[in-house]
Amino acid sequence: MPVETHRIQIHTKGNSEVVDLTPHLLKVLARAKIADGTATLFVIGSTAGITTTEFEPGLVNHDLKHYFNELAPEDGHYAHEATWHDDNGHAHVRASLLGPSLTVPIVGGKPTLGQWQQVVLIDFDTRSRTREVVVQVVG
Amino acid sequence: MPVETHRIQIHTKGNSEVVDLTPHLLKVLARAKIADGTATLFVIGSTAGITTTEFEPGLVNHDLKHYFNELAPEDGHYAHEATWHDDNGHAHVRASLLGPSLTVPIVGGKPTLGQWQQVVLIDFDTRSRTREVVVQVVG
Amino acid sequence: MPVETHRIQIHTKGNSEVVDLTPHLLKVLARAKIADGTATLFVIGSTAGITTTEFEPGLVNHDLKHYFNELAPEDGHYAHEATWHDDNGHAHVRASLLGPSLTVPIVGGKPTLGQWQQVVLIDFDTRSRTREVVVQVVG
Repeated sequence: MPVETHRIQIHTKGNSEVVDLTPHLLKVLARAKIADGTATLFVIGSTAGITTTEFEPGLVNHDLKHYFNELAPEDGHYAHEATWHDDNGHAHVRASLLGPSLTVPIVGGKPTLGQWQQVVLIDFDTRSRTREVVVQVVG
Repeated sequence: MPVETHRIQIHTKGNSEVVDLTPHLLKVLARAKIADGTATLFVIGSTAGITTTEFEPGLVNHDLKHYFNELAPEDGHYAHEATWHDDNGHAHVRASLLGPSLTVPIVGGKPTLGQWQQVVLIDFDTRSRTREVVVQVVG
Repeated sequence: MPVETHRIQIHTKGNSEVVDLTPHLLKVLARAKIADGTATLFVIGSTAGITTTEFEPGLVNHDLKHYFNELAPEDGHYAHEATWHDDNGHAHVRASLLGPSLTVPIVGGKPTLGQWQQVVLIDFDTRSRTREVVVQVVG
């Protein structure tokens, strides 16, 4: 069977919290039957994204938040907010820029990440959320 | 047969028009034999990109255009334009930042999108174009 | 056998050097047994990224470098640098924004790139590096 669908539930605080998905991905791969192929991580929803970073406090708690706020400021003007009378226009713009999806090669049951490279979810929404990340393993 | 290649033709107006690809993707998947796996959408060319967003007028007609113009302004200076005597340097920079490709898990013949999450093409070029998006379904 | 793992070694100068990976990818595909599927290119490490661009000197030597420096300036303040007493905070932020991975459809042994569209690695680190790019071919 060349395809397996796994799902990860993540509780986040929103406000550009960066969450390390790597331990969750390793757990999925430990119980997967596929040892070689790809894992596509896809976050459901349009105010969060997935990428990699070195998961250390400076980047995670300060730098990524700061520069995403330069890209699409929390206090900017968003037509989206006029449409829905909400406050998360910047979250949508940041999520579209980052993208909801990351595909990682899997070799011998492990993702080919560097030692200082973790897979992360960034939740840009303005409130705490429970996020579902689909991990589609193909191989 | 574990791989199917489909192609979508899209007419765009350029100038950062955001086009909803979701109905096209659903049509492709309705006639695909593969029900579980991944769909990789890849736009041919270097002045357009693919991501997801909530497809509502505020984001699509205003916010995404506005913040991409902050990232790489239409009236900025581009060495690319000096090379080719054209006017689309900003389109190239934006397209490289966004990326030409998106991989979406397919489960039971459907993409695992959220209710307010659509797959979109953004055409950054400065004129109307006919775009070809390859949809590679693997499963 | 539906999965093949290939590896490309690239020497870079860092400092946002843009390297054309297309000839390397074509070489990998020429010796691959899989003719139809996807190739996922994934760079190991958290200070480089992969995307596509038109590989011409204006974009590659000037425009991409310039606008990535606008996004996350070399002389900005980075908490990451205080943590590790190094100088590459901007490289981490840029790499997370761009993403480490690109998935390209492969049809008849060739990637479905446009004529003026090349796959590139951008090395944002502040020194020369030897980079490993995993090319996972699934089909």
